[in-house]
Amino acid sequence: MKKPSLIPHAQAGASGIRDLAARLGISIGTVSRALNDKPDVNPETRKRVIAAASELGYVPQQSGRSLRKGATHNIGLLWEIPEGRAAYGEPFFLSLFGGTQQVLSARGYDLVIMPDQPGATADPLARLRRIIQQRQVDALILPWTRTMDPRLDYLAEVGIPFVALGRSRSGGPHPWIDLDFEQAGEFATARFIAAGHRRIAIAIPADSLMQKRFFLAGYRRALKAAGLPFERALVAEGHVTPAGGYAAATRLLDVIPRPTAMLAIDSSMAVGIYRRLAELGLSCGQDVAVIGGVHDTPMTEFLVPALTCFSLDTVALGRRLAEILLARLDSKANPAGELWPIVLVERQSDRID
Amino acid sequence: MKKPSLIPHAQAGASGIRDLAARLGISIGTVSRALNDKPDVNPETRKRVIAAASELGYVPQQSGRSLRKGATHNIGLLWEIPEGRAAYGEPFFLSLFGGTQQVLSARGYDLVIMPDQPGATADPLARLRRIIQQRQVDALILPWTRTMDPRLDYLAEVGIPFVALGRSRSGGPHPWIDLDFEQAGEFATARFIAAGHRRIAIAIPADSLMQKRFFLAGYRRALKAAGLPFERALVAEGHVTPAGGYAAATRLLDVIPRPTAMLAIDSSMAVGIYRRLAELGLSCGQDVAVIGGVHDTPMTEFLVPALTCFSLDTVALGRRLAEILLARLDSKANPAGELWPIVLVERQSDRID
Repeated sequence: MKKPSLIPHAQAGASGIRDLAARLGISIGTVSRALNDKPDVNPETRKRVIAAASELGYVPQQSGRSLRKGATHNIGLLWEIPEGRAAYGEPFFLSLFGGTQQVLSARGYDLVIMPDQPGATADPLARLRRIIQQRQVDALILPWTRTMDPRLDYLAEVGIPFVALGRSRSGGPHPWIDLDFEQAGEFATARFIAAGHRRIAIAIPADSLMQKRFFLAGYRRALKAAGLPFERALVAEGHVTPAGGYAAATRLLDVIPRPTAMLAIDSSMAVGIYRRLAELGLSCGQDVAVIGGVHDTPMTEFLVPALTCFSLDTVALGRRLAEILLARLDSKANPAGELWPIVLVERQSDRID
Repeated sequence: MKKPSLIPHAQAGASGIRDLAARLGISIGTVSRALNDKPDVNPETRKRVIAAASELGYVPQQSGRSLRKGATHNIGLLWEIPEGRAAYGEPFFLSLFGGTQQVLSARGYDLVIMPDQPGATADPLARLRRIIQQRQVDALILPWTRTMDPRLDYLAEVGIPFVALGRSRSGGPHPWIDLDFEQAGEFATARFIAAGHRRIAIAIPADSLMQKRFFLAGYRRALKAAGLPFERALVAEGHVTPAGGYAAATRLLDVIPRPTAMLAIDSSMAVGIYRRLAELGLSCGQDVAVIGGVHDTPMTEFLVPALTCFSLDTVALGRRLAEILLARLDSKANPAGELWPIVLVERQSDRID
C-alpha cells in the first residue's frame, strides 16, 4: 500500500509540515503520523492536525484511497435537496439508494446519505469539507453534476475516490455514469416528427444541470435532421414538478400556432401538463401528444391516459455506482465513463388513434 | 458530566471488564479508558475493545449521551426503504430531511441518512448495530415505528439518545412525535357521513405500522358515533402506491351495494383510485367521493379533480425532530411525546355539486 505524501493545495499558498507543527505546538513526527493515519496518535491531536492542515491548504497526494481504505466502511452520497422538488419526493434516488446499499452491504460497506443545502451557507462546499475532514466516509457518490463543479475539483484535490452521476468538465479524470439525455431528447422528438407533428414544444429545468443541456441538444438535433426550425417560444423552463409542468404547459399552449406535441424532461411534470390540457378542454393524445421524459415512476401507467415516457432501471444504476466505487477501493478500476441509454415505454399519451 | 459505567446486557449473560481485558490481552485500565472514551487510547485498540464489549453483551449504563457527546456531530436517521414504495419516492421524508438538516447545521451538527433493508439479512438490527458500535452518530431519529419494535429496545439498552417518529410500546420512556392518524381517519369519515354517505370504503397499508391501526380506529369510531355498521368488505389492504390504490379501488368498487365514498390513508393511492373510477365510467366527486389521506404533495392539487386530502408541514416536523434531539444532547429534555394534528385541505374530489 503506497503511503500518501503531502502537497500544498495550489490555491492555498505554500506551507509545510514544519509550519503545521509550529502552529500546533507539537512535534513534526506527530503531525506526520497524524496525517498518515498511523494508529499511535491521540485522536484529539489527529483531529486538530487534520483541521489545521485543511485550513492551511494541505491535501494528501493522490492516495486518499490508501489513506482511508477501510477506515469507515461507509460510502457517502452527497444529496442536494433542490428547492421546489423536495415536497414531490425523489423516486429516482430512492430506488437508486436501495440498489447501492444492496451491493455495498454484501461487501461489508454501508451507504450513508448526506443531505446538503448548498445555498444555505456562504461556502457551498461546507458540508463536503466536513465530511472529508472528519473522514466520515471511504469514498463518495456525487449526483447532480454541473458543467463546472467545484465539488469534483475539491474531491480530486483531496484524493478521495469518487464516482459522479452525470458528466462534468471538473474533477480531472474520474469515473462517472450518465444517462443519455441527448439520445432521449432526440428520440422522443424524432418520434413526434415521424407521427406528423411539426410544432413540438419542450419543457426543461431552469437550473444549470448538465442533463438539461443534453436533452435540449437532442431535441434540436432531431428538429434539424427533419429540416424544422428551432423556436425559442416553444421552449419553457421551470421546476421539475407537477407545478412546473403546469406552468410550462400554460405558457406553451398559449403560443400561436399552438404546438401539437409536448415533451417534458421528467415524468413528474406530466400531472401538471394533463391538468392544463383538461382546463383548456384539450384531449391529451388527440389534441396534444405528450411524452413525459425521464423517468418512468409507478404513477405514470395509472394516469389517464397512461403516460408515454422513458424508463430507467434505477436500482441497477445504484448497484453499478457501488460496484465502480468498490473496484476503485480495490485499485482495480480505471476512471472510465459510462453513458447509459434510456428506453421509451410506449403508452397512450402520444397516440392519435 | 456523569461518567458512564458498564452493566452486562441482560440477555447476553454476565461478564466483566476483567474478562474483556483477558480476552483481548490488554490491561484492565486500557479497557476501561477505551470504554469511557478517554483520549489516550490507541484508536485501533479502542475499536477492538468496543467490538469485543459489544459481542460479550456489554453496554454503557444510561450514559450513551455523555459517552458520545460531541464525538461525531452527526445525527443519524435510520431509513427503511420499503418494498413497492421506493420507486414512488418519499415526498414526506425528503421535505422532513430538509427541515432537520436546517436546524442541525445551524448548531454545528449534520444529518446522515442511513438506508436500511431489514429483510435483507438474518439480523434485522444488523445495520443499527454497526452504526452504534462504530459510533457513527451522536443520536438517532427512528421513523416507522412498530407496535413492538426491537430497534427501540436496542437503542434504549445502549443508551444512545433517540427520538421516534411514531408511537411504540418498545424502548421504555423516550421522546416521540406522531401524527394523529386516528383523528384524521375519524374526521374524514365523519365528513363523509355529514355529506350523506352511508357506505364508506377505506384503503390502508398491508404492513404492521402503527399508523394503520390508528387510522382504522378513527374510521371505526366515526362509524360507531353515527350508528353505522363496520363492514370488513369495505376495508382494503395494499401498497401505499398508485398501484396499491388501483388494486384497492378495484376490489372496493366491486362490493355490492357499491360504496359511495372512499378514504385512502395516503394521497399516493389517489392516482390509482382515479384511474379505476375512469375505467368504470364513474365520476370522481359525483359518483364516488374520494378523500386522499395523508399527506398533501404538490401533485394533489393538479389532479383532475383536485384531491381533498390531509396536509402536513413536513419541514416543521423535520425541524422539531432535530430540536428534540439537540435538547436531549444538552440534557434539557424530558422523554415526552407530541401528537401532531393533521389538517384537511378541502378540494373537489369529495364534492357532490
